[in-house]
Amino acid sequence: MSFELGPVSPAGARLVELAEKHAAEFAATADEHDRRGSFPFAHWDHMRQSGLLAASVPTELGGLGVGTVSDLVVAVSRLARGDASIAIGAAMHLTAFWYFARLAAGEAAGAAEGAAEGAFGPMLKLLLRRCARGHVVACVAISEPGTTLGWPRTTARLGNDGYHIDGRKAFCTGSPVGTVFLSTVRLVAGGGGESLGFAVVPRESAGLTVLDNWDALGMRASGSNDVVFSSCRVPAGMVRPSGPLGALSTAMLPLATVGALMLVGAALGIAERAQELIAPPEAGDPGWSALPAGRALLAENEIDLAVGRAAVSRAAALLDEHLGSSRSPKLLHALMQEVQCVNVAVKRAAMSIVDRTLTLSGGRGYLTANPLSRLYRDVRAGPFMQPFSNLHAFEYIGRVRLGWDTELDHEPRGGSG
Amino acid sequence: MSFELGPVSPAGARLVELAEKHAAEFAATADEHDRRGSFPFAHWDHMRQSGLLAASVPTELGGLGVGTVSDLVVAVSRLARGDASIAIGAAMHLTAFWYFARLAAGEAAGAAEGAAEGAFGPMLKLLLRRCARGHVVACVAISEPGTTLGWPRTTARLGNDGYHIDGRKAFCTGSPVGTVFLSTVRLVAGGGGESLGFAVVPRESAGLTVLDNWDALGMRASGSNDVVFSSCRVPAGMVRPSGPLGALSTAMLPLATVGALMLVGAALGIAERAQELIAPPEAGDPGWSALPAGRALLAENEIDLAVGRAAVSRAAALLDEHLGSSRSPKLLHALMQEVQCVNVAVKRAAMSIVDRTLTLSGGRGYLTANPLSRLYRDVRAGPFMQPFSNLHAFEYIGRVRLGWDTELDHEPRGGSG
Amino acid sequence: MSFELGPVSPAGARLVELAEKHAAEFAATADEHDRRGSFPFAHWDHMRQSGLLAASVPTELGGLGVGTVSDLVVAVSRLARGDASIAIGAAMHLTAFWYFARLAAGEAAGAAEGAAEGAFGPMLKLLLRRCARGHVVACVAISEPGTTLGWPRTTARLGNDGYHIDGRKAFCTGSPVGTVFLSTVRLVAGGGGESLGFAVVPRESAGLTVLDNWDALGMRASGSNDVVFSSCRVPAGMVRPSGPLGALSTAMLPLATVGALMLVGAALGIAERAQELIAPPEAGDPGWSALPAGRALLAENEIDLAVGRAAVSRAAALLDEHLGSSRSPKLLHALMQEVQCVNVAVKRAAMSIVDRTLTLSGGRGYLTANPLSRLYRDVRAGPFMQPFSNLHAFEYIGRVRLGWDTELDHEPRGGSG
Amino acid sequence: MSFELGPVSPAGARLVELAEKHAAEFAATADEHDRRGSFPFAHWDHMRQSGLLAASVPTELGGLGVGTVSDLVVAVSRLARGDASIAIGAAMHLTAFWYFARLAAGEAAGAAEGAAEGAFGPMLKLLLRRCARGHVVACVAISEPGTTLGWPRTTARLGNDGYHIDGRKAFCTGSPVGTVFLSTVRLVAGGGGESLGFAVVPRESAGLTVLDNWDALGMRASGSNDVVFSSCRVPAGMVRPSGPLGALSTAMLPLATVGALMLVGAALGIAERAQELIAPPEAGDPGWSALPAGRALLAENEIDLAVGRAAVSRAAALLDEHLGSSRSPKLLHALMQEVQCVNVAVKRAAMSIVDRTLTLSGGRGYLTANPLSRLYRDVRAGPFMQPFSNLHAFEYIGRVRLGWDTELDHEPRGGSG
Repeated sequence: MSFELGPVSPAGARLVELAEKHAAEFAATADEHDRRGSFPFAHWDHMRQSGLLAASVPTELGGLGVGTVSDLVVAVSRLARGDASIAIGAAMHLTAFWYFARLAAGEAAGAAEGAAEGAFGPMLKLLLRRCARGHVVACVAISEPGTTLGWPRTTARLGNDGYHIDGRKAFCTGSPVGTVFLSTVRLVAGGGGESLGFAVVPRESAGLTVLDNWDALGMRASGSNDVVFSSCRVPAGMVRPSGPLGALSTAMLPLATVGALMLVGAALGIAERAQELIAPPEAGDPGWSALPAGRALLAENEIDLAVGRAAVSRAAALLDEHLGSSRSPKLLHALMQEVQCVNVAVKRAAMSIVDRTLTLSGGRGYLTANPLSRLYRDVRAGPFMQPFSNLHAFEYIGRVRLGWDTELDHEPRGGSG
Repeated sequence: MSFELGPVSPAGARLVELAEKHAAEFAATADEHDRRGSFPFAHWDHMRQSGLLAASVPTELGGLGVGTVSDLVVAVSRLARGDASIAIGAAMHLTAFWYFARLAAGEAAGAAEGAAEGAFGPMLKLLLRRCARGHVVACVAISEPGTTLGWPRTTARLGNDGYHIDGRKAFCTGSPVGTVFLSTVRLVAGGGGESLGFAVVPRESAGLTVLDNWDALGMRASGSNDVVFSSCRVPAGMVRPSGPLGALSTAMLPLATVGALMLVGAALGIAERAQELIAPPEAGDPGWSALPAGRALLAENEIDLAVGRAAVSRAAALLDEHLGSSRSPKLLHALMQEVQCVNVAVKRAAMSIVDRTLTLSGGRGYLTANPLSRLYRDVRAGPFMQPFSNLHAFEYIGRVRLGWDTELDHEPRGGSG
Repeated sequence: MSFELGPVSPAGARLVELAEKHAAEFAATADEHDRRGSFPFAHWDHMRQSGLLAASVPTELGGLGVGTVSDLVVAVSRLARGDASIAIGAAMHLTAFWYFARLAAGEAAGAAEGAAEGAFGPMLKLLLRRCARGHVVACVAISEPGTTLGWPRTTARLGNDGYHIDGRKAFCTGSPVGTVFLSTVRLVAGGGGESLGFAVVPRESAGLTVLDNWDALGMRASGSNDVVFSSCRVPAGMVRPSGPLGALSTAMLPLATVGALMLVGAALGIAERAQELIAPPEAGDPGWSALPAGRALLAENEIDLAVGRAAVSRAAALLDEHLGSSRSPKLLHALMQEVQCVNVAVKRAAMSIVDRTLTLSGGRGYLTANPLSRLYRDVRAGPFMQPFSNLHAFEYIGRVRLGWDTELDHEPRGGSG
Repeated sequence: MSFELGPVSPAGARLVELAEKHAAEFAATADEHDRRGSFPFAHWDHMRQSGLLAASVPTELGGLGVGTVSDLVVAVSRLARGDASIAIGAAMHLTAFWYFARLAAGEAAGAAEGAAEGAFGPMLKLLLRRCARGHVVACVAISEPGTTLGWPRTTARLGNDGYHIDGRKAFCTGSPVGTVFLSTVRLVAGGGGESLGFAVVPRESAGLTVLDNWDALGMRASGSNDVVFSSCRVPAGMVRPSGPLGALSTAMLPLATVGALMLVGAALGIAERAQELIAPPEAGDPGWSALPAGRALLAENEIDLAVGRAAVSRAAALLDEHLGSSRSPKLLHALMQEVQCVNVAVKRAAMSIVDRTLTLSGGRGYLTANPLSRLYRDVRAGPFMQPFSNLHAFEYIGRVRLGWDTELDHEPRGGSG
């Protein structure tokens, strides 16, 4: 008996059930994909077909109609129990379509300064419908080495035939199956003025290349390749201004906030899987259970899991309660701060949990053949994720608490991210 | 803006509002009571009068009719922001009356093997009514040095005129105003057989002495004196058998579980108060805020607070959802395990939070005149509380997770607790 | 059997033996002085008489002739086992006289830009001789609320009759018996230029007042009062320039470095005492030892003690090996950085150790009557001590490692320390 | 400038210089061997040829004549900076030959109950000479899944033609080049009585098979294969009784103690390497250095390194001072306890250090191409190593402190190690 997280709505219940089925499939191949660093195309196909990737698409457009962050994050945690490499890609896609559905539903329309108008509006509906038919996978392409989210070096310059985008994005999870790439860009005006922009770039765009260069410690089946834009042309309507450089605009904050929490869900799922592997309920008493020190480590994991679940659950509930169509920077930053608190805490806890299962394994978990050794590597990816990595999160959280401006006032030096 | 815990029901809203008013009063005298080690009789009188102490008494019996653990624990956390010494006493009283109300309401009646019958039933109603009129304060008298909850050394022997109780209890919080003492006893049968019992002892019972010997590092205004039973006579109906020694019976588990969580609420309140004192929203930028290291410490506190609130909130919700009238040992232990996880985590976090505020204070918090120095001592009381202290919690949590028996198989040695 | 730290020289052996005798005396009164917040004049008298306070005075001037930091820090740790409030005062005095002896011995004389000349030179010898006769106690008066070591607000202005000093110092440990006060000052030149200065102020100086206002969480018998300078006049030779504001000059660095390590010794002594109290070797098996969780906590303490002793010992040995008469800023900062690393680590460990003994005590340690409750408060003083508190230490250590300038480029804002 | 550990003797200085040269070579191939999981035969050949592997062989027998643990452990830490997979193999070999040299030198001979007599004595000298010529590599084959050091399941039965050994050892680091395998065995007497034994098994022994099955998370170039004994025959003189099962005999304790500390040296070397990679002194300011949070993480690493070096250094010095020829169980366990304290602390610190460098890398360290990703996996091997893993260390340390018997009173259950 264990009080795991569950769905909060009937649509969510269908989603979580789906996610559990997928996870069972993922689990069977996770170690092999990890070893080979191969991308699990088949599993992604299944997720397109099952409707999971259309979770937040309204039912009238053919989706599951899941309307809450609470349900989505639980689904991501379930997927991560099977294979976290897939779960983080799905999380990003689901976040994007949560956002598109929100825009399309017009909940935010009024406040969004005409967001759904022009070329963007119809595109949204089309995207949602195509997603429901399994034809779209959104891939988030925002990270760049040596800079932070608010200061992209990838430029977008408006010409007669739309925007020309140049630059290189890294850690583009799910890129092998991405059909549309969501990117932050630096809008360069004719006069040289610069601002932040947000681009939606179809895969078939000329000048877009998805590399095959992902080779990392963990999350090896995530296809987190680099994506290169070389004079990549996209229609003007696919690029939207997002305020000054260095700042998270009120339009972007909900997206970034929900996206961050979804990835926390993945970390939780990894931790739950590790605990299940080290002490499978059906398997009687593992050897280490004879040692009080072993039981104490198990208990520390139970503590971290209980608290981690609560943290994810409350943050999701707060988002569902407060996000609404608000564009109050104060509220939006308060929500992001809450999510960042949970982000730091749960990813830290997840790493500790997996580490303790390795200790409990008595050396077995250190062997490549043991899935714990994969989880140990996968879970370490958590704290790197944008926004904010552990190098930036504390400063952000502290500033919000002090009521200070959270915009970084200057661009990072080029040396490193 | 901060997502503090709030009530979940209208009755809870009234309770929390009351608690906040009391807390404001407590705060004004907390340091003085701490310095002098004096007991805040006036504040207790106000709590009797305001109806706060009758929070969980049904409205038809004159109480506030708060029916959820969720609301009660929030109220305790608010009280603790004012003075934790009072909050922990109130927590114990509120727990007792939550339990009495539950018994009386007959929710648990059927399953409780006739719990509300005989002398016990009418006594309950009477207690509840008297509580609503502000005439009763319940004081928990269960701790004994050198042993654990399941192995009391205080004995109760049945004679012709009721039970004779002999022994000494320690850490009896709120004892100066306690009108009725709830004690674990060792029932000694005529033939010498021993089992666990639970006694409700009115203050006026012959042979009961409340000492005035509480003098501790913190919680100095809590009146956690020793209570001595010397051939103390109580009517037979006031003592109930609770199963074998060393075990927490299914009848006792809900009481112990809710009681534990209520005290976690107090720890949370202390931590919230410390954070408020070090960075009062209205006070501009404290000196330390100029240091990135200062902002990072503040952020760590925000993280611990966010997670702590979530943990308390989810545990309370799980109790409200699952406790019901269940007497399934498996479920009850699962709930206790969840609460113990939260107990360890939140008290640990609360201690860290207060510690960091001391660091932020730059030495000022170390001065007696600064309330942080009191909070630092008060918050340290948390991990000692029964059941389970940090010496026992991990073993309990681990055993529940493994599906093992949680009963301790032998009595602690006398040396120490 | 336990590998405690020991002396490294015959003179050190005599010193440590003395320190152990004093510590045994201190221990008998420590709780009472703590409770009353009284100053242990008698113990200080005994330390003057025994020669302990003249530890580093050369034998030819009547002292013990202890020449190493290694021996001094061990002696401080022994004193702290008895009463840390006294040990930290002794540590500061011993550091001052280690420094005076070093100056006087002329080891540093040549490099010290005429340090021992003029009024300062003879004063040093006199101080040392008078110290050997038990007539001098040096009291460090450098802390000021709201600022850091390098930016004192206490001013010294040169007039015809010497310097006039104005300002207020806090945390002046040992002030009730201090005969000479060592203070940082802000030298204000006629033209308004400001620089850092170091003043030696005799107690009998007009305009110097030692308050009786020390009332703190712990270290209650340390007499760490405020000292007020009000147009306090001292001869010109008693104030020495120490370079620009905000910087630790090469002349001050050895003093500050050794002083910091000596206080780490006190933290170690507190921790050793706590471990001894919770598990006295002669007392058989304490009750908690029956619990594996208890033995694990004891083991964590053993780990922290073993590592803490090693850290103190190696840092002292490095100082003894490298300090010599070097005035290389790079070397001096490297040594200070090493000491700061040890400072953070050992004080952190000491707090954890005492905290664990409280847990092991099962609640008894929380009672005022139990010396652990005093140690818990005393040990918390450690991280506040100058230079650097935990708010500044990490930045300093990081900058030294990066080869950056360690001078703070602007004055702290006034709000807080 | 940094106070790294250095040699304490002229022979040690030569050894450390050699180790640094080897490390530079190792570093060039470490990532490739890691990726391929290949064994670095060439580097081992070079260590045979350079004399490094004969470090502790007396000069008169052709070795370097390094007589202290202090020097050996520094050398191991240097090797680990290059490639920890090689360093741990070298550590085990060097430990074995430190022990053989000690036995041979007769320092322990008298006390060792005739240890150097019979077939064993001449064998020792031969081993030492052959080692000096680079013909011997000792491989420690003691671990077995599902049991602890004191309860091997590998049996040795005495027959007419010597012992027959049957069983399987795991984690036999360096096995691809091992020429002689040092194994714990369960001596089974004719009558069925069982005791602990220690066997020295030449590689060419019939019935010994070194598998090629090492495939793990890290330490991938260590060749830590399984070794299978199948009716493996060794001369009677090559197997020595070592007391009852479950206990570490006084003869084995020095070997196990020194061996444990040597492996701590490897952990230290990994950590030093990670810190050097993230902040190479010659490389100016890395990007993260602009962030105060980055400098704080660097500082935490400096703290852990300073303390870790001190801990290793003091433990080694204590071994050099006290090991002598003592066979006092109390002293030997006190030394082992000290080493275990250092073992837990330094390996824990080393893991934290590498983890922080990953954080500082901003994601780059997570890429396979970055050596930090290898160090992150390598350093995790530390806490598994015998005796005692983190599942057993705390209990051992606690029992020694309490003066209790440290022998495990029953055999571990089979489920796990």
